[in-house]
Amino acid sequence: MKSNYVDDSLTLHTDLYQINMAESYWADGIHNRKAIFELYFRKLPFGNGYAVFAGLERMLQYLRNFRFSDTDIAYLSEELGYKDDFIEYLKNLRFTGSVYSMLEGELVFANEPIVRIEAPLVEAQLIETALLNIVNYQTLIATKASRIKQIIKNESAAEFGTRRAQEMDAAIWGARAAIIGGFDSTSNVRAGKIFNIPVSGTHAHALVQAYKNDYDAFHSYAKRHKDCVFLVDTYNTLKSGVPTAIRVAKELGDKINFVGIRLDSGDIAFLSKEARRMLDEAGFTNAKIIVSNDLDEYTILNLKAQGAKVDSWGIGTKLITAYDQPALGAVYKMVSIENENGEMEDTIKITANAEKVSTPGLKKLYRIINRENGKAEGDYIAMSDENIHEEERIKMFHPVHTFISKFVTNFEAKELHHKVIAEGEIIYESPSVNEMRQYAFDNLELLWDEYKRSLNPEEYPVDLSQKCWDNKMKNIQEVRNMVHDIENL
Amino acid sequence: MKSNYVDDSLTLHTDLYQINMAESYWADGIHNRKAIFELYFRKLPFGNGYAVFAGLERMLQYLRNFRFSDTDIAYLSEELGYKDDFIEYLKNLRFTGSVYSMLEGELVFANEPIVRIEAPLVEAQLIETALLNIVNYQTLIATKASRIKQIIKNESAAEFGTRRAQEMDAAIWGARAAIIGGFDSTSNVRAGKIFNIPVSGTHAHALVQAYKNDYDAFHSYAKRHKDCVFLVDTYNTLKSGVPTAIRVAKELGDKINFVGIRLDSGDIAFLSKEARRMLDEAGFTNAKIIVSNDLDEYTILNLKAQGAKVDSWGIGTKLITAYDQPALGAVYKMVSIENENGEMEDTIKITANAEKVSTPGLKKLYRIINRENGKAEGDYIAMSDENIHEEERIKMFHPVHTFISKFVTNFEAKELHHKVIAEGEIIYESPSVNEMRQYAFDNLELLWDEYKRSLNPEEYPVDLSQKCWDNKMKNIQEVRNMVHDIENL
Repeated sequence: MKSNYVDDSLTLHTDLYQINMAESYWADGIHNRKAIFELYFRKLPFGNGYAVFAGLERMLQYLRNFRFSDTDIAYLSEELGYKDDFIEYLKNLRFTGSVYSMLEGELVFANEPIVRIEAPLVEAQLIETALLNIVNYQTLIATKASRIKQIIKNESAAEFGTRRAQEMDAAIWGARAAIIGGFDSTSNVRAGKIFNIPVSGTHAHALVQAYKNDYDAFHSYAKRHKDCVFLVDTYNTLKSGVPTAIRVAKELGDKINFVGIRLDSGDIAFLSKEARRMLDEAGFTNAKIIVSNDLDEYTILNLKAQGAKVDSWGIGTKLITAYDQPALGAVYKMVSIENENGEMEDTIKITANAEKVSTPGLKKLYRIINRENGKAEGDYIAMSDENIHEEERIKMFHPVHTFISKFVTNFEAKELHHKVIAEGEIIYESPSVNEMRQYAFDNLELLWDEYKRSLNPEEYPVDLSQKCWDNKMKNIQEVRNMVHDIENL
Repeated sequence: MKSNYVDDSLTLHTDLYQINMAESYWADGIHNRKAIFELYFRKLPFGNGYAVFAGLERMLQYLRNFRFSDTDIAYLSEELGYKDDFIEYLKNLRFTGSVYSMLEGELVFANEPIVRIEAPLVEAQLIETALLNIVNYQTLIATKASRIKQIIKNESAAEFGTRRAQEMDAAIWGARAAIIGGFDSTSNVRAGKIFNIPVSGTHAHALVQAYKNDYDAFHSYAKRHKDCVFLVDTYNTLKSGVPTAIRVAKELGDKINFVGIRLDSGDIAFLSKEARRMLDEAGFTNAKIIVSNDLDEYTILNLKAQGAKVDSWGIGTKLITAYDQPALGAVYKMVSIENENGEMEDTIKITANAEKVSTPGLKKLYRIINRENGKAEGDYIAMSDENIHEEERIKMFHPVHTFISKFVTNFEAKELHHKVIAEGEIIYESPSVNEMRQYAFDNLELLWDEYKRSLNPEEYPVDLSQKCWDNKMKNIQEVRNMVHDIENL
């Protein structure tokens, strides 16, 4: 690289406009006013009925290390021409705000805050881009993985996508998100090392090519590896690969643990059934058939419908890139800001589309769980000064189609946000990735099956309290009045 | 993270099976046999007529630093249980091979090698995953950017996608690839710093929200920034945003440089025309209209067809994730390997699909340029011992539909591969990203327009020499014979 700046800091991993805005706030002296921002998405991905949140640990890491390095400062000053007074200010800037977040593995729905930032305006502004970058991708992949796992059920699911991932961070953080979403392992060794998650894999076509034939290749592999999965489709699956795997397994007997075979091309439904028959006839009824080849929830469902004989699934491209919807559209909106008198004032972002209007104010988010059946009735967003634990019944109504409503009694209200940073100090330690995975499984138990099916799931309710709704209407009216005044200037 | 391994090394950024195969090669003593691998894709992305290669600089960086760190070794040994003798071997492993590559900004087509690796088998094997990870993504984005730029033509194009990118590496390497593909700038400040590429951006809705109205926000921005682009759609584009931008610009006169306005939502075709009219009527005929809102080549083409008045385009999600096709399917195939007598023997990967059969042997790749009109006639893959510069005419024929052929005379044969690493030593220094961008523009001049249109482009010829074709047929026959023998065992 031609850059003269040798170190790298993630603090510059932001959009230029954030720094321009920071400068304006600072120059006007409003940079330290307390601001509240919420991070949320407006639409569930993949037509799924829920999403699985991932990204908190990376966010905490980023916020902990938030400071402009010497070369960041030099770049901003010398190359981008920011003035000395502002540069001096940036040198000592740290993240001093508080963060409330869902935990990784939590189920999340459209239009509810995943993360809430309460921080000096300038800090909350500068971190927007990186937080969205992290949460959008990791949540997308955890959700895709969970969706695929719903179809795979109890069979084994391995993440194999590194070579097709969108650069290196996607490969490793995507592997981690896949585990949170319910996968069993990844092929990426670095992800295994960094995140302490299981890795899996055996051999590729190149091994067979190096030995020029299946027989020598399988024998070579078996010499050094006790657990053997032979890849059988390098030359001809049914004429060479499977018979040779069986032959080698017979020759070696209990010198190896013949785990099974892997199919990576061709008509998986047909080949898996034929291979199963051949393995069974040879007495290897416990040998597993592992399949990989551009799989996703749709192809897996189809293969199962065709009676494919598959014990274990390797999922690459379609998972690691979230192929059918490669971006989650999470946004980060200011909902409240301190005014010149030190009071908090709510803010709103209006658009022509009713569903895109933000919900102002400091709020709390609850999952309402019916005590009778242990299932979630919906999520409930209330103003922070409402005490819903004291209420005997709550009225839940649809935030767009308000005539749809129900009353809920005998409920438990689980608060979904945890305070993870208190005035700049990280007060939360992430559990293991495996614990996050278990947390996601446990959370799924709370949902009715209707929300979990992959095609046309029911819409899970995310409702506003009456007070929250009234506050939103009041804010909309204030903006309408303001626009009206400008029009008549 | 719960990991005990504090450092991070990209050497483990590989699939587990690569390490398993490496162990087998090493245990059998064939690990140092010379192997030749080619990296290529089989199908152009987005239905485009060409791709733009990007990723070389990152590949070189990765190969230069290829060595297992102490904690990598500890992880492989203690957690994954690789045996001590193999672990000892891995400790001193470096990349000692040679690499031949296209240059970044080169146009590349299906089924031609982008990169050729000539290295000891074990090294060539271990680096596969990372090379594919790098080239697949960066080439995908450079191609998408070039495709969008073909529609945008001479207007300005800015990459705005960081918040929707698939994690952080995608944001910065994607920004770089976008510039190589023809974009003018990125919003990502870190990418600007690392790669020395132009950054751009002004302010977001949050600034307007912080000041509660457009007027105060625009004035605040103007206090500190000479060049002003005002975002006009926070509350109401035509009733508040544009009139206020005009009012502030008039009030401040030449105290600022009123560059223009930005639209980020709503009916861009309608709003841009109305905004243009309002700006013109106010005397700001030079003020630019900058647009961003889920744009790609299709929406831009449509906006242009509707007569939208846009001077500058900000492209986010659809570019940085290559939304309509988020993965390039590049593969890495062994084409030749040293045998026990020290001679090179060609290898092939057979599949049922004729187009997926690899092309064996050590080959060279040429772009055949017609001297009469300066345009490319096609690319030509010959065996390395063929000297096509000595030939007066060459016969080019389609590698699948072989009856399609033509003779070319009076041509210049431009060799597309450059030796960038010689026996482990990097002998190539990357030019600036801006030079790569110019190289891509220059290369596009060689192509007839029929290959460059975004819808249904003509198929650019990538043909095999007769000798190369004959060699491939010979290899296919040898595999057929081998499979036949196994069948009749």
